[in-house]
Amino acid sequence: MARNALGKTKSRSTQSSTREDQVAERRRSLLDAAVAVIAQKGLIGTTINSIATEVECSYGVVSFHFNSKEGIILAALDYLVDDYDHTLMRETDKPADRLKNMMESDFSGKVASARRIAVWAAFWAESVRVPTYRERCAEVKARYVAVVKSDIETLAEARGLTVDALQISQSLNAMIDGFWIANLVNGTTGVAGQTVAKQACLAYLRGIFPDDF
Amino acid sequence: MARNALGKTKSRSTQSSTREDQVAERRRSLLDAAVAVIAQKGLIGTTINSIATEVECSYGVVSFHFNSKEGIILAALDYLVDDYDHTLMRETDKPADRLKNMMESDFSGKVASARRIAVWAAFWAESVRVPTYRERCAEVKARYVAVVKSDIETLAEARGLTVDALQISQSLNAMIDGFWIANLVNGTTGVAGQTVAKQACLAYLRGIFPDDF
Repeated sequence: MARNALGKTKSRSTQSSTREDQVAERRRSLLDAAVAVIAQKGLIGTTINSIATEVECSYGVVSFHFNSKEGIILAALDYLVDDYDHTLMRETDKPADRLKNMMESDFSGKVASARRIAVWAAFWAESVRVPTYRERCAEVKARYVAVVKSDIETLAEARGLTVDALQISQSLNAMIDGFWIANLVNGTTGVAGQTVAKQACLAYLRGIFPDDF
Repeated sequence: MARNALGKTKSRSTQSSTREDQVAERRRSLLDAAVAVIAQKGLIGTTINSIATEVECSYGVVSFHFNSKEGIILAALDYLVDDYDHTLMRETDKPADRLKNMMESDFSGKVASARRIAVWAAFWAESVRVPTYRERCAEVKARYVAVVKSDIETLAEARGLTVDALQISQSLNAMIDGFWIANLVNGTTGVAGQTVAKQACLAYLRGIFPDDF
């Protein structure tokens, strides 16, 4: 993961770097397994054992990396958030392009797969009971809304339009989540359903900025 | 519940009618308790015993009415769907008024309370594992989208506009679900959060039909 690489220096030995890479790689495969297990069994049904079975390693390896079931579930949520954050950081200084990239990413095979949506849905549902999940989900939403709001403001200024940037940003975020759920319950999480959802979100933005989307 | 009353005849004795009313009333209080318990404990944590405790009756009374935990959970989903359906049946022949009524209802204290949203979120999350929940959620969505689509078509025709009625209907449904989730994870399920959501949905419709919303 990119964040773990921050601060590393070139002067470290190749051996040490390889060892770190191996640990990061192992951690990543455990988190992929955690996402798969949570999607399949739900948060309550997920256990250290079920993750160990999924990744074909011992109970000890999973608990060494994440300590507890709670630890691995929160790490899986962070893992999803990290992936989601990459959506927000596409390098372009054109706000409309950045918003288009976001839509592309939000309804890409990886981010909007049935598995990933199932995991988000599990966290939303458990948010009611687990403050840590609720706070984390709220924090992701706030960040996303802020980033989109900033692009909407820039775009509106460039086009000489007066818009409610916060409302648009919240609406777009709601539409994306809502289409994720619709695709999940309608069994349309594949490319066709993702395309319908993406086009609807772009049509919404086109209604506000006709020349840009 | 209205559906149970179908087929009743006026010739029945008052006593029998009162008895039926009592059964319906009891059933309704059990379903209210079921919704409360599901919101609080989630679908997996819900048991016949926890519902009996909530409504202060015996295990036997709950199991007499609903047979099994699965039975009461599905009955609770039907109960929510029935309530939701009343949203769709507001009597007015003006499509814009009907859509406004829907928004009003979708973000009313009862339908969009933290408790109700928590129950919907639980069903969405469990849809992945339980085909009965998924089918029921998909069926509600399809019905809602069809009703809204029909109103959008009528309105577009009256205004001489060419619109993608299916896309608008799906987008509006997605926005509503998405705002429900946002209000849930942001802890804004009260009147203020509901108002923000309703205004955003109306603003979306106003973007398409400027004279009607």
